Amino acid sequence: MTDPFEPVKASIAVTLDRLLPKHSPIAQPMVDAMRHAVLGGGKRLRPLMTCAACEAFSGDYRVALPAACGFEFIHAYSLIHDDLPAMDDDELRHGQAATHIAFGEANAILAGDSLHSLAFQALAEAPGLSAAAKLRSIALLSQAAGWPGMAGGQCLDIEAEGKELTLAELEQLHAAKTGALIQSALVVGGYSAEVAPDDARLELLKQFGAHIGLAFQVVDDILDVTETSETLGKPAGSDAALAKNTFPKLMGLEAAQMRANELLEESLALLEKAGLATDMLTELANRAVKRSY
Amino acid sequence: MTDPFEPVKASIAVTLDRLLPKHSPIAQPMVDAMRHAVLGGGKRLRPLMTCAACEAFSGDYRVALPAACGFEFIHAYSLIHDDLPAMDDDELRHGQAATHIAFGEANAILAGDSLHSLAFQALAEAPGLSAAAKLRSIALLSQAAGWPGMAGGQCLDIEAEGKELTLAELEQLHAAKTGALIQSALVVGGYSAEVAPDDARLELLKQFGAHIGLAFQVVDDILDVTETSETLGKPAGSDAALAKNTFPKLMGLEAAQMRANELLEESLALLEKAGLATDMLTELANRAVKRSY
Repeated sequence: MTDPFEPVKASIAVTLDRLLPKHSPIAQPMVDAMRHAVLGGGKRLRPLMTCAACEAFSGDYRVALPAACGFEFIHAYSLIHDDLPAMDDDELRHGQAATHIAFGEANAILAGDSLHSLAFQALAEAPGLSAAAKLRSIALLSQAAGWPGMAGGQCLDIEAEGKELTLAELEQLHAAKTGALIQSALVVGGYSAEVAPDDARLELLKQFGAHIGLAFQVVDDILDVTETSETLGKPAGSDAALAKNTFPKLMGLEAAQMRANELLEESLALLEKAGLATDMLTELANRAVKRSY
Repeated sequence: MTDPFEPVKASIAVTLDRLLPKHSPIAQPMVDAMRHAVLGGGKRLRPLMTCAACEAFSGDYRVALPAACGFEFIHAYSLIHDDLPAMDDDELRHGQAATHIAFGEANAILAGDSLHSLAFQALAEAPGLSAAAKLRSIALLSQAAGWPGMAGGQCLDIEAEGKELTLAELEQLHAAKTGALIQSALVVGGYSAEVAPDDARLELLKQFGAHIGLAFQVVDDILDVTETSETLGKPAGSDAALAKNTFPKLMGLEAAQMRANELLEESLALLEKAGLATDMLTELANRAVKRSY
């Protein structure tokens, strides 16, 4: 069976490659590290979300591609920095050496920083997007990536190692660390549609993003317990090694699986309610939960 | 004698404080680290450049303040990351503990990342700037901070430790590492003026920025040799300790001092030619070269 996402995924791959630098007279190792981190693997969940949301609002997903890739650059930078010895200290990512293992810590930090800048360049220079859509997208991305979102969530994740969180606190952690970026990837897809979507549907799309982002994280925690490092392409069991708070640990493996399925059902209901239950968004939601890596 | 920059500096201080987060329910140590890094000290050279350039083009510098502070956030993030053990491994900054010493490495990396995102938010949400001015500024900042600019220059700086560069290579290094951000801080000041400046004058302003940025770095290298850690507020002699290429090392102390003065003269001539030799830009150029810290 052919993958229905294949054309969109191929366009994302081409755009990532095009937006990434290839050569630098002054910083070739850092440029190589940027390409290693982005092109070395990944499910492209966030850029697919942007493209799918754009299409769900009757937009042309090709217009959304540079912004979609901006989200992948932010995601890739966060993985580089998260894997550093001072953070989660992981040596394997997407089945290959983490960026700081392959290129050294200094180049890894700088490659992450450069991808961070490049994401905003991709949005600011996206052809075909209106100035208003670009500025709304940039403002949203900066918040989702920054202190109120992803970076804040990662801070809490590290501060909470070895301490026990409540389930509500763990959900708050992941709403910031993973949810904010997924939500904003979807909303920017909406902004990229030719006709600006109304606020009510965007709000439902945001709720869908919150649900599916959380479901994705619950499944991530489950897979860290149930799968091997080989399947995952990153070290299995690393949450336990770092005494991280996880959904299986706080509620048990079976209850965590039920929670993931429940979140999936709720997210699909939100799509229906918004009139956005397209094949692509529905399939993306299903894949976020029913996956083995 | 009162400082003629005092009112502008006071406005910058107020704006920095206002744009920085104070409280976070999930990431207070990171937010504290962000404030420590930005509010702990610094000459505010880049935001002063933005405000001065805006006024030189008959703009109201208050309109340029959020963008100006965006440049200070980028500068502060770069200092946090540069001071990390994997980079220059410095423990002292602005006469106080470097951010990773005061808040730990993980919080320092994340505080830098959050300041990086916050810079783009400050530009995207700047009141009073046109959408076109914001987008041009964001595109320029992302390049100046990213792989073709500051981050690329820092990569070369680290890769070149212990190797001997030519003078031309050292100038190329600093054009990327320091010059690009100073140039773009000036140009964004121009973009912030009510009447868009013509390209010829912007080009002269960019050349002024290149000259003064290089002069600033030559003086930085000289001070690392001639001053004490107490005066500098950061470890003196650290360039030699890291076997860094510096202007005094490559051309001798006296020739380096002459080069700095020559660059200052050339930069002032460029200002005259552009019709931008205002008190504030002239004084900023003088201070960048004739300083003891």
